[in-house]
Amino acid sequence: MRNILIIGAGRSATYLIDYLLEKSTTENLRVTIADLSLELAERKTKGHKNARAIAIDIFNEAQRHTEIGQADIVISMLPAHLHFEVAKDCITFKKHMVTASYISPAMEALDEKVKEAGLVFMNECGLDPGIDHMSAMKVIDDIRDRGGKVILFESFCGGLVAPESDNNLWNYKFTWNPRNVVLAGQGGAAKFIQEGTYKYIPYNKLFRRTEFMEVEGYGRFEGYANRDSLKYRSVYGLDDALTLYRGTLRRVGYSKSWNMFVTLGMTDDTYIMENSENMTYRQFTNSFLPYHPTDSVELKLRHSLKIDQDDIQWDKLQELDIFNPNKIVGLKNATPARILEKILSDKWTLDPDDKDMIVMYHQFGYELNGEKAQIDSTMVCIGEDQTYTAMAKTVGLPVAMAALQILNGNITTPGVQLPIKREVYGPILKELEGYGIVFKEKQLEYTGYNPQNVVS
Amino acid sequence: MRNILIIGAGRSATYLIDYLLEKSTTENLRVTIADLSLELAERKTKGHKNARAIAIDIFNEAQRHTEIGQADIVISMLPAHLHFEVAKDCITFKKHMVTASYISPAMEALDEKVKEAGLVFMNECGLDPGIDHMSAMKVIDDIRDRGGKVILFESFCGGLVAPESDNNLWNYKFTWNPRNVVLAGQGGAAKFIQEGTYKYIPYNKLFRRTEFMEVEGYGRFEGYANRDSLKYRSVYGLDDALTLYRGTLRRVGYSKSWNMFVTLGMTDDTYIMENSENMTYRQFTNSFLPYHPTDSVELKLRHSLKIDQDDIQWDKLQELDIFNPNKIVGLKNATPARILEKILSDKWTLDPDDKDMIVMYHQFGYELNGEKAQIDSTMVCIGEDQTYTAMAKTVGLPVAMAALQILNGNITTPGVQLPIKREVYGPILKELEGYGIVFKEKQLEYTGYNPQNVVS
Repeated sequence: MRNILIIGAGRSATYLIDYLLEKSTTENLRVTIADLSLELAERKTKGHKNARAIAIDIFNEAQRHTEIGQADIVISMLPAHLHFEVAKDCITFKKHMVTASYISPAMEALDEKVKEAGLVFMNECGLDPGIDHMSAMKVIDDIRDRGGKVILFESFCGGLVAPESDNNLWNYKFTWNPRNVVLAGQGGAAKFIQEGTYKYIPYNKLFRRTEFMEVEGYGRFEGYANRDSLKYRSVYGLDDALTLYRGTLRRVGYSKSWNMFVTLGMTDDTYIMENSENMTYRQFTNSFLPYHPTDSVELKLRHSLKIDQDDIQWDKLQELDIFNPNKIVGLKNATPARILEKILSDKWTLDPDDKDMIVMYHQFGYELNGEKAQIDSTMVCIGEDQTYTAMAKTVGLPVAMAALQILNGNITTPGVQLPIKREVYGPILKELEGYGIVFKEKQLEYTGYNPQNVVS
Repeated sequence: MRNILIIGAGRSATYLIDYLLEKSTTENLRVTIADLSLELAERKTKGHKNARAIAIDIFNEAQRHTEIGQADIVISMLPAHLHFEVAKDCITFKKHMVTASYISPAMEALDEKVKEAGLVFMNECGLDPGIDHMSAMKVIDDIRDRGGKVILFESFCGGLVAPESDNNLWNYKFTWNPRNVVLAGQGGAAKFIQEGTYKYIPYNKLFRRTEFMEVEGYGRFEGYANRDSLKYRSVYGLDDALTLYRGTLRRVGYSKSWNMFVTLGMTDDTYIMENSENMTYRQFTNSFLPYHPTDSVELKLRHSLKIDQDDIQWDKLQELDIFNPNKIVGLKNATPARILEKILSDKWTLDPDDKDMIVMYHQFGYELNGEKAQIDSTMVCIGEDQTYTAMAKTVGLPVAMAALQILNGNITTPGVQLPIKREVYGPILKELEGYGIVFKEKQLEYTGYNPQNVVS
């Protein structure tokens, strides 16, 4: 029996655990599920004979050493900032490691030691980052194999609500960490490159400069730019590409409406509001508007945001109940962002029967034999229910598959890495198709931003 | 002879040095002017017999000890972050100290030691902070002496261009550190209180929610909110005041226009722009606008900011030459804010004959004998030329006066402090009047924001 240690049994571990337990008999696996909550870990074993649940305190060094020492490979599904403790132990005890998180500078710094120990530390192996890398590199490598040169790469991903559960004016519900949604785009201008020109979008314009795209069978979406679209430029070998743009997908209209919160200042997470605990939703809204003894909060907001009487933006705000004078925030020392998260959670939480949906959209522009062409690659995954969500599936399955591939000696290149090599993404993408995670590629005429090569 | 050591002989030290040299014979003063540049220090002595110029390296401990050891009082006109080194030595050698800077937490932490040593460390003793404290506390103390209670305090100050030199569309030129002007309002929402309600303005709205005020003989001004209007609430004893608002003054229309830069993202100082050195002004502007192969930068900007064809905002932008395809930025690894500063400096630098102007405006609302009333207190100071600026005068004179008062034993309360006590502001405000720095107080009917006490 080979021992797999999974640390963290939260939402994103459901499919991951099920997959490994399902394979456990044929693959001779013993799966240890470790979580701060023993109850949660036990529940996730579903009583499987090859599963073992334990409570773990990640700051308990002795326990960490024991468990990691006994494992053949470690999957860390902990919050990203906690991977490092696990990683150090994995080096000490010479264990491979897999995560779904971005490679932190601390993790990156371990690369040499990991290589020396002949270990594979596979990171960014979930959905985004994860499947985005794999599916993008597959097309990029294909184009290169044919002798082509990639000149444009745009990539968008969104965690959304499935069409059958999409029943509010925002066409959005929280399907993952709400806090990240509220803070999206903060901390610096979005940077990308279009037709060789660097472009920067400040936070106050981020949600007003979206791109539109159509996904067959699912209609129209919009994307707003991620902070750093150039992050993987060199990693993907796209230093010469003229256009690089990465973004987040929403249903059309979401961003324009979200920008109301940005403009009002409700997404700010840098200061604590006075008396946040006893504040009403109406008072919260009023905090961002000028004082007036008699003018209503409603009219002040309409005026401030220039919302006409027949504008759908207004209905979206009313749907969220932000003018309610009776609902109490009830959060001590809260920032505007925390309070907004609370208000949105009242309305944007999935109902028991709701399903989530993951949409990924890549565009590849390239030159081949003197001609420009384009491939669009799209993937849509819809969840089954609130446990078996599309998010848990797309995050968990590639992690599980990568772990098994490493364990079986199919992925051997050592070091701290992400899944951009053929040996990694090839088998995983193939296997994901069996689980309904399928990319549809479509050959198109090149559009880009300057298809006629006009010199301005 | 009493030795006064002035460290830092820059722009704000001109009047300060002249004042002390003028008094040096009758007051038995020997004035040491220390600066990194010996040439600058020498120039500022004007060959006065009681003056001595030296070059000083503030990080040369031995030299610092020698000079501070010989002084009877030390005036630090260094950049704020360098005061602390001087302050520690002043405690060691038991010397009083005066600065025009905000009390830093490090400085504040010295309070006990300063008190033990029986020393006066007078800070925030320039214009703003400085004269604003003094002139405000004078009126507040007067109201209290009469048995009144302050319910509203608003205070605005601006460094502007004098009417006779006001010849651009922005009605603004740089009269002090341009960098601070470009970064104004960044780093957090503005917070204040109006009629007992806390209000918060995010950066993207800061320059769109101004207050207007009229100064007799000088026309209309607008004020945008400072970051923290509540900073001196307890210091001034205004914990019960219903309205507290501090702001920065500009000519009407400036803020609306400035907001264009905010919206475009040009004031961002958090990232470095690619190829900033060789970028043209036009390319800089285009960086913040969507890519298009043929649409002009002009039209893209007009569309982005919704500027109509006959809107004065457009002329203001053109006046700054931001569409010029030939002017090169010429700054290595520069942030947008640095580049904007450069572009503005081309046009907003004072001409040799230009004069600057300081405007300060306080409003005090109060209750006395069951009646509400209001006092507005205003001060306007116009510079003589580019050396004898209103800014140098209003910053330097109160510092010099405070130093002499301390030296003469008229200010004796020990500790790290700011000039809010009668013993401090009384004589200084009186003496400033002789130099043309005069506050005009006007008794008015109370306006406030809710004069009829409407309960909403």
